[in-house]
Amino acid sequence: MSAPPAVVLLSGGLDSSTCLALAARDGFEVSALSFRYGQRHTSELDAAARIAAGAGVARHVLIDIDLGSVGGSALTDDTIEVPKGRDAAAMSADIPVTYVPARNTVFLSFALAWAEVLGSSDLFIGVNALDYSGYPDCRPEFIAAYETMANLATRAGVEGRRLTIHTPLLELTKAEIIALGTGLGIDYSETISCYEADDAGLACGECDACVLRRKGFADAGITDPTRYRGGA
Amino acid sequence: MSAPPAVVLLSGGLDSSTCLALAARDGFEVSALSFRYGQRHTSELDAAARIAAGAGVARHVLIDIDLGSVGGSALTDDTIEVPKGRDAAAMSADIPVTYVPARNTVFLSFALAWAEVLGSSDLFIGVNALDYSGYPDCRPEFIAAYETMANLATRAGVEGRRLTIHTPLLELTKAEIIALGTGLGIDYSETISCYEADDAGLACGECDACVLRRKGFADAGITDPTRYRGGA
Repeated sequence: MSAPPAVVLLSGGLDSSTCLALAARDGFEVSALSFRYGQRHTSELDAAARIAAGAGVARHVLIDIDLGSVGGSALTDDTIEVPKGRDAAAMSADIPVTYVPARNTVFLSFALAWAEVLGSSDLFIGVNALDYSGYPDCRPEFIAAYETMANLATRAGVEGRRLTIHTPLLELTKAEIIALGTGLGIDYSETISCYEADDAGLACGECDACVLRRKGFADAGITDPTRYRGGA
Repeated sequence: MSAPPAVVLLSGGLDSSTCLALAARDGFEVSALSFRYGQRHTSELDAAARIAAGAGVARHVLIDIDLGSVGGSALTDDTIEVPKGRDAAAMSADIPVTYVPARNTVFLSFALAWAEVLGSSDLFIGVNALDYSGYPDCRPEFIAAYETMANLATRAGVEGRRLTIHTPLLELTKAEIIALGTGLGIDYSETISCYEADDAGLACGECDACVLRRKGFADAGITDPTRYRGGA
């Protein structure tokens, strides 16, 4: 029996790269989907391309979408500053300015469209409820509601095929994700999590994403391979 | 009290133009949203711009999205032929090739993102369950599930503000929509429904959208102002 096709959202960061490796481990034929959505830097898309190629995915598509034209996030609007030097407790207190309005909803919707064309019943997204509790669209109840909607939105629902949104990282800590991915042979030096990585892919070390990632490696007791600016 | 903001999806066709007029009639400040999504022709976008301007909307944004890169529809793929000369009964028998996978899911997701930025709790979409029973994402149960999901996806849900997806055309026949819009003063000669309109906005008269529209005017007993090729 041939491997069932799955669509995996791949940002090029630590979480989505681990999610992709898990989909492949579980026997799916992986179609990876990335977006150029007005983010401040595109070195994470270079990372996504390397990771997809390294994992031997069946196909990798990059879609251009214009989320910047709706604005409202520090990640797509240069006039809003990315916070620096906050600890994990401060991050979870509120929805951060790095939240991109409805981003996961938009990403999943394109994944849903592609899944329908590919005849796939399985979507993977590397959301995590523990480290990103401040993002409404990383919560388990959001994913469950999206899955219900997705099953009514497409041919699959009409024809009685059941779509599943897989979220293998949902309840894992960053340290657990890193330990899991390391066991699967992921080279995390190739992934980029930093909100303000430079063109060479070097991380700032100070934004929320860098702080969470650095803490994850420390908690996992695994040497952090991230390439920081200034070698920090 | 100032008018509450609403995001209205506007394709430039008969249904969405009527939906926009209803949102304005009901006292909303309208922000209209259109998409260049790889459709065969863009004269409907010219129509959308004229309709938005004529209705005096607060703002009209056109977002480029690359639905063509996932393929799977006659509307975004020139290698799939648009059916011609089918009657309404033949259309409702199956999901037509003009169905664009997950299109309304994708469109609503951008509307949701924009609504969050604008602080809007009201989205309008001109879906119709009677004339488009073959499209899974025009069914009432899809809209209800989308609304539930949307209320978990964004700040609004976290902060206890209730988002509503308005579908004022959902249970109306095409003739009822036309009668309603004519009463609101809509000039339907400015709207374009045809799947294969030419650059001048002239309709083919034979695709499913043209057949349904023509029948709607006939059933409503209103002279069809549509500009057809060859003056048909």
